[in-house]
Amino acid sequence: MNKTLVFHYVSKTLLLGSALFLVPCLVSIVYGEKDTALVFLITAICVAIVSTPLAIIRPKNKTMYAREGLVIVAFLWLIFPLAASIPFYISGEIPHFADAVFESFSGFTTTGATVVSDVEEMSKGMLFFRSLTHWVGGMGVLVLAVAILPSSSNSMYLMQAECAGPQVGKIVPRGKNSALYLYIIYGALTFVTFILLCIGDMPVFDSVCHAMGIAGTGGFSVKNAGIAFYDSPYIESVVTVMMGLFGVNFRLYYFLLIRRFKDVFKNTEFKVYVITMAVAAAVMAANIYPIYRSVGISIRHGIFQAVSIMTSTGFYTADYTLWPTLSQMIIFILMCIGACAGSTGGGFKVQRFIIMFKSLVKTVKKTLHPKSVNIVKSNDKTMDSSVVHGVHNYLVLYLGLSAISLLIVALDNMDFATTFTSIAACINNMGPGFGAVGPAANYSGFSDLSKIVLSVDMLLGRLECFPIIIMLSPSVWRKNF
Amino acid sequence: MNKTLVFHYVSKTLLLGSALFLVPCLVSIVYGEKDTALVFLITAICVAIVSTPLAIIRPKNKTMYAREGLVIVAFLWLIFPLAASIPFYISGEIPHFADAVFESFSGFTTTGATVVSDVEEMSKGMLFFRSLTHWVGGMGVLVLAVAILPSSSNSMYLMQAECAGPQVGKIVPRGKNSALYLYIIYGALTFVTFILLCIGDMPVFDSVCHAMGIAGTGGFSVKNAGIAFYDSPYIESVVTVMMGLFGVNFRLYYFLLIRRFKDVFKNTEFKVYVITMAVAAAVMAANIYPIYRSVGISIRHGIFQAVSIMTSTGFYTADYTLWPTLSQMIIFILMCIGACAGSTGGGFKVQRFIIMFKSLVKTVKKTLHPKSVNIVKSNDKTMDSSVVHGVHNYLVLYLGLSAISLLIVALDNMDFATTFTSIAACINNMGPGFGAVGPAANYSGFSDLSKIVLSVDMLLGRLECFPIIIMLSPSVWRKNF
Repeated sequence: MNKTLVFHYVSKTLLLGSALFLVPCLVSIVYGEKDTALVFLITAICVAIVSTPLAIIRPKNKTMYAREGLVIVAFLWLIFPLAASIPFYISGEIPHFADAVFESFSGFTTTGATVVSDVEEMSKGMLFFRSLTHWVGGMGVLVLAVAILPSSSNSMYLMQAECAGPQVGKIVPRGKNSALYLYIIYGALTFVTFILLCIGDMPVFDSVCHAMGIAGTGGFSVKNAGIAFYDSPYIESVVTVMMGLFGVNFRLYYFLLIRRFKDVFKNTEFKVYVITMAVAAAVMAANIYPIYRSVGISIRHGIFQAVSIMTSTGFYTADYTLWPTLSQMIIFILMCIGACAGSTGGGFKVQRFIIMFKSLVKTVKKTLHPKSVNIVKSNDKTMDSSVVHGVHNYLVLYLGLSAISLLIVALDNMDFATTFTSIAACINNMGPGFGAVGPAANYSGFSDLSKIVLSVDMLLGRLECFPIIIMLSPSVWRKNF
Repeated sequence: MNKTLVFHYVSKTLLLGSALFLVPCLVSIVYGEKDTALVFLITAICVAIVSTPLAIIRPKNKTMYAREGLVIVAFLWLIFPLAASIPFYISGEIPHFADAVFESFSGFTTTGATVVSDVEEMSKGMLFFRSLTHWVGGMGVLVLAVAILPSSSNSMYLMQAECAGPQVGKIVPRGKNSALYLYIIYGALTFVTFILLCIGDMPVFDSVCHAMGIAGTGGFSVKNAGIAFYDSPYIESVVTVMMGLFGVNFRLYYFLLIRRFKDVFKNTEFKVYVITMAVAAAVMAANIYPIYRSVGISIRHGIFQAVSIMTSTGFYTADYTLWPTLSQMIIFILMCIGACAGSTGGGFKVQRFIIMFKSLVKTVKKTLHPKSVNIVKSNDKTMDSSVVHGVHNYLVLYLGLSAISLLIVALDNMDFATTFTSIAACINNMGPGFGAVGPAANYSGFSDLSKIVLSVDMLLGRLECFPIIIMLSPSVWRKNF
């Protein structure tokens, strides 16, 4: 592997990224928080200084293969959140280092799991920064999923699966252009969310932060009570609709732009995504009716929670850990299913479930009628068996990593539901879980070891394991590889 | 499908099976329980009468295909436990019908989950019958797994996976002979267990019942405190070793008989099975030391529970729900892994995990070195990719069915751990779970609907889903199929 190239690009992006800290620095100045502003300024300078030497040395061989690309991605997703944990730590707003790292990884991976008990105590600058990590993380994932990964030929990654489906790459052939289109769509949708929230009388600062949290399907709020604080059906509706939209495959927006409406509404994943949320919302609404004794409130909570969980945002209007077990199990299952592939949402992804389901049906049919020929289809186009195999292998990896994490986090001796759902909530980039990590609680009760394991899980879930595995493979680092 | 043939064989086997009720009838007479004896006699007569008409009409076309075989198996596993629930119900010892059905399915599927709070209150005849269902169930599974299923060509079933490994079928070509060998090995091992328990001063009746429970890796005991009642390290050791032996692929015993020792000790599944149990036992022993404050007792409990859970027997010497979370999670994971394929044990089976792991490693290697050729290997022989695909599909089916069951059982509004582990304990044919279904508790708290769903799960887990799916497929029942 071309190590010089890898480190050059990582450093270059870090140098560019150091400018990011200037935004919350500006916000801090606006709100008269001088100390916080200084913290961000120092961080920006430190990151810039550290990354400059390698960034200015140009590598001789500039040929970049998919492998190099993946390792760069993995490095950036590891180093950048680490750098971003500095302001949390040195400002003293998150005084424990492992906590700061956890919060930062949770932000960038758009998980939204927090260790902060009282967010309203934090400075405006830090709250803004916290939400900004969601927004940047969401953008990073989109570019990774739609622009970088499809060009790398590996049988594990889902994007190959979608060669059969709509693909931006086919229309906008160059990676840079695809990324640009995505930035525009992502930015525009975020702006719309911000405006809609402002219209609902949400303060401008809160609107900006929540809009960024929604865009990244993150879940950090600036209020302890979350979205429930505003107690406004309008705001809840806006948040619900926008969360749902950010959970859709962004390629579909591209199709909308070029007026290929048919491709959007024929999309199987989109249909399954919407139907699953609708059914889950309806069942939960009926299930929680005895608690709220109001059809309207039950439906509001049901829909909000279904969308929030399935998109892996993790905003809440009610403490669902107090809901009946059926609703809890629905939430747990939605958490694992996740949003559409190619969105900012987390989880295992609807598309993978569709592929697995179709493969299963095919196998059963084949056994019943051994002579007939069945080919797994997705969006009416024939799908490669290596894609199905890749999805299956990802499932095994995902379960295996969850099991290992489970054993480590279990050392903290939390109860069954807490231990179990903390892993699920982190690896699916959801945020809150059940028990001691429910929406009304937070992750501060875990040991440092668990916080690190959960941070790694968030990263693995976000990058869908693959770049990390490549990065950790010793053979990739051998000289003549 | 040849329906006449199917019903003829089902009826014939039922007629033969009706004789089974005469054994507990005899036991009841020996213990002077006239009423109980009468119950079994009546059941035997009823089953015989119902099954005679179809059993004596010989079908014209006697050609049996794999499909017919699988449907016969599914029918028998459904009808026989239903028939066996009659004695529980009409004797009044399990007065609620859904409970009786649950207990009977739990027995035949060698799950060992019970609805009886005080087993010591039951009559000797009924206790014997309860354990007998384990023994018969275990035998049924062995014959199914080693003699019937390998001959049916379906890509889902594991046995195809083992074409690469040792296979009785290759040496003893006819199904009947394979079955005979299995009966002899199974009977002999059960007898040895019985004798060893007797030597440990366990009463003869208890020894017979426990020997049958161990053989089927079931878990029904005749004491409320289970094996802990005898408080004897010798008995615990015997039970541990014998449970472990019944969790081994029975083909290996055949190899021992024909002195092919090398094939036994080179068997990957066997090695992984033993190592997993050993590691789990060691970690649990260390983890529970602070509770028992005795190295000896901690090791005893650790080993006993590791073997009992991994073989899906479900005997217990301690209430593991009171153990630290790490031990609980180990138990949960062992429960899902299960025993070796081709044993009487349940779970997902070690062999499947090996196949999935090897497939995953292959995929990762292939992505790192796209040009190299890697083939998944099992027991040093090349394995078909359709086998890997079958295992993956089974995993998806297994998770899907678990998720559906989870949602239905959740209606009972039990806590998270109870709901979650009741499904896992039933579909893996384990028995006790956590929370309200822990070893010190039982399944009587569930609704009838949940009991039926859990019974179906036990059956699906036991038959590894496949025969049931075949039976339920409408196309199989069409005239010209």
